[in-house]
Amino acid sequence: MQALKDRILKEGKNLGGGILRVDSFINHQVDPALMNECGQEFARRFASLGATRVLTAEISGIAPAFSAALHLGVPVVYARKTKPVTMPDTVYLTTAPSHTKGRMTELIVSPEYLGHGERVLVIDDFLASGETILGLVRLTRAAGASVVGIGALIEKSFEGGRKALAHLGVQIEALVCIASMENDQILFGD
Amino acid sequence: MQALKDRILKEGKNLGGGILRVDSFINHQVDPALMNECGQEFARRFASLGATRVLTAEISGIAPAFSAALHLGVPVVYARKTKPVTMPDTVYLTTAPSHTKGRMTELIVSPEYLGHGERVLVIDDFLASGETILGLVRLTRAAGASVVGIGALIEKSFEGGRKALAHLGVQIEALVCIASMENDQILFGD
Repeated sequence: MQALKDRILKEGKNLGGGILRVDSFINHQVDPALMNECGQEFARRFASLGATRVLTAEISGIAPAFSAALHLGVPVVYARKTKPVTMPDTVYLTTAPSHTKGRMTELIVSPEYLGHGERVLVIDDFLASGETILGLVRLTRAAGASVVGIGALIEKSFEGGRKALAHLGVQIEALVCIASMENDQILFGD
Repeated sequence: MQALKDRILKEGKNLGGGILRVDSFINHQVDPALMNECGQEFARRFASLGATRVLTAEISGIAPAFSAALHLGVPVVYARKTKPVTMPDTVYLTTAPSHTKGRMTELIVSPEYLGHGERVLVIDDFLASGETILGLVRLTRAAGASVVGIGALIEKSFEGGRKALAHLGVQIEALVCIASMENDQILFGD
């Protein structure tokens, strides 16, 4: 998606170690018009899947997932990283390594909002190693629901996530693909 | 706002101790169409303030703040509760007691996204004691910016937040006001 690519070129910062800083428009400060446009594009690409729910991981996935869900006309569920007191005692919980945090994080969903038979579209900000998305897939399956598609704003294809998700046999869409971040550059792929 | 009031009556759960569970449409599972409608309503009520930025606290404030910012055509900034590695070393940080977590939480904003002279509209899910919102006000002032308005989806007027914010002298809007949660009931006020 050209608008997102342009914004990465303008404001994205290559911090080294494969970490792309996009917190001026996705993660900390958010450009709602751009995220809304990305949500429309996800809705267009996944329109035929019959998704009944969008699932993401808090925090960074929320803006694109919310926007996609708005345009698909379905609820969005945020997998929480800590269990609030308002959540029931028994939940679905899995752990996934966080690239930017350098440790394992928990992903927690209440069984009330991820039911048997749901058709789940997983949306996140990045598709990197695929570990967070695989965590969301495990939660979905634990609930007896199925993942019907996976979308990310930005794929870092050099981290192998698409390969790690291939066995799922579902449609995978990234709005922008980055092929290399070596030598302080950001090189886009297809 | 009638649609939000209806939804609270239908799905809100009074957990006692003044805690209202709304995680089927605001906090964990989110109804994007309803949140979008709430965002439109905030944008309408605060249209004349000339806000240049919306500020909220992750997680629960994100959906209404994002929607309000989309309809106002300004960026939204999420105050983070933990400092990610992608954030600069020096940040604005304050602490505020969390009612539902029973402990102090940190609110952190990068100086890059809250600049001198900004006109900040603070949006959160609840206006209860006002502590979180006052934390966001402190961050705004630390940045040399000014708070021009405060909006919440749901005010619990029996917790005194509006009084705690009155000295700020800014427009305060709640889309729904709950006057009492005693005896397992949810009674609306004006």
